[in-house]
Amino acid sequence: MNVDHTIPSEALPDHLFIPEITRQTRAFDTYGVNEELPPAEILQAYVVTKAQRREMPIIGDPDEEIIARLKAYYSAIAMRIEAGSGLMAAPMFSLSHEGFGRVVITVGKLLVLDRTLRDVHRFGFESLDVMCEQADKLCQSALTLLENYPRAARE
Amino acid sequence: MNVDHTIPSEALPDHLFIPEITRQTRAFDTYGVNEELPPAEILQAYVVTKAQRREMPIIGDPDEEIIARLKAYYSAIAMRIEAGSGLMAAPMFSLSHEGFGRVVITVGKLLVLDRTLRDVHRFGFESLDVMCEQADKLCQSALTLLENYPRAARE
Repeated sequence: MNVDHTIPSEALPDHLFIPEITRQTRAFDTYGVNEELPPAEILQAYVVTKAQRREMPIIGDPDEEIIARLKAYYSAIAMRIEAGSGLMAAPMFSLSHEGFGRVVITVGKLLVLDRTLRDVHRFGFESLDVMCEQADKLCQSALTLLENYPRAARE
Repeated sequence: MNVDHTIPSEALPDHLFIPEITRQTRAFDTYGVNEELPPAEILQAYVVTKAQRREMPIIGDPDEEIIARLKAYYSAIAMRIEAGSGLMAAPMFSLSHEGFGRVVITVGKLLVLDRTLRDVHRFGFESLDVMCEQADKLCQSALTLLENYPRAARE
């Protein structure tokens, strides 16, 4: 994929998810390949516009980098759930080579997020704003579950 | 591993877990390699005695067959949880190539089983009776959680 390094750092969304996903992306960058890059360039890889998506094959095996981004994204959501609840949140992934699978986030005995994964080779968002919005929705829904089932979450 | 085909069918434990794990083991036998084998021979592979365990390397990569048995075992537990609760139970695995990972079983928004996996290359039980006993304990603990958190399980 041709990545267009066009987002200046000052144009990053002013959202708490941005530093978190930057941190998680760096954590999953095991070999430090992107260590020197500023956040704006690191996060650029999460942007997959409709036009870019159209150019991608419908079926494809996700590579390690995209899987690392997927894991960083849901791990960042888990960290935001921790920040919002004060409780430990653990992500877990189950992914086939073909890019199908499931991700869950657990807090105690409670499943606060449970999503089917498809087309992981095309994982990405129309923009970083859209990414933050969607992450917010998932966090909010997890926090609502935590409010509704506080006992199971603390088991 | 040298499997000792010594258990006659009539000597199988009289336990509901036995037909269930036989069914699950056949379901995971994608290529029908063991299609012709009677239950007693299929289940023999789940028996790893202390003596056999001592002969195995402490660290090792689990092969596909042992991973299939691990998945069949926890899937059979999920089916027993369904039978005991009348609710859908879904197993999920996350496993590294080195045989470390995590298995969970979810019912609705409730995590009814959550175990760390280690040394998967040595997965097995001292005897089939021990296997049934341990499966019973895991089922029982799941059913207790379901009694304690019926609302989360039905979400």
